[in-house]
Amino acid sequence: MSAPCPFAETPPPPFYTVIFTSQMSGEDAAGYQKMADRMLQLAAQQDGYLGVESVRDADGTGITVSYWRDRDSITRWREVAEHLTAQDQGRSLWYERYHVRICLIEDEYRFSAS
Amino acid sequence: MSAPCPFAETPPPPFYTVIFTSQMSGEDAAGYQKMADRMLQLAAQQDGYLGVESVRDADGTGITVSYWRDRDSITRWREVAEHLTAQDQGRSLWYERYHVRICLIEDEYRFSAS
Repeated sequence: MSAPCPFAETPPPPFYTVIFTSQMSGEDAAGYQKMADRMLQLAAQQDGYLGVESVRDADGTGITVSYWRDRDSITRWREVAEHLTAQDQGRSLWYERYHVRICLIEDEYRFSAS
Repeated sequence: MSAPCPFAETPPPPFYTVIFTSQMSGEDAAGYQKMADRMLQLAAQQDGYLGVESVRDADGTGITVSYWRDRDSITRWREVAEHLTAQDQGRSLWYERYHVRICLIEDEYRFSAS
């Protein structure tokens, strides 16, 4: 599953975001992709979910930015059982390294050529 | 110029970040790359700059996350003359669309397999 558009259509601030920067280990790429698709699907079903933007380059470095109504929504998503299992597998197998930052979005602006 | 490591070594929160999600137009890729390298170099010289993480995929979708000490640093960087010129060129030539979100980083955690 891929997002049909790379931009998340989020509401006016304030709301929250999780910036997830990661470097893949290179192990089990097919299993990783299956889990990643499932987690996008599952996240979108959570209360407070507002959208996601995700990019990975050819070197296996990725940035996924997910958007949430409030910090409680982020905390609840982190504790969803199937997500906890994916996090465990991520640490033991798929990720070489990752960095998570939880942020309050205060302001935004946009540009579109069309 | 590329960052030697995809992860920015930022200090403990709180501090600020700018999430820049973009879709390239496909025009003048060489000129864009030259500008992008120069902007990374110039940003790193600004007071309050803390680091950057940037990923672009094969479809031309990119997420660049830059880190800053405070909102004043972000405002000053946005108004640097050479950066203003690059922003103008970006809107008229290089970018199909972009979305900028300014955020306060409240919390973070990290994982490394090694």
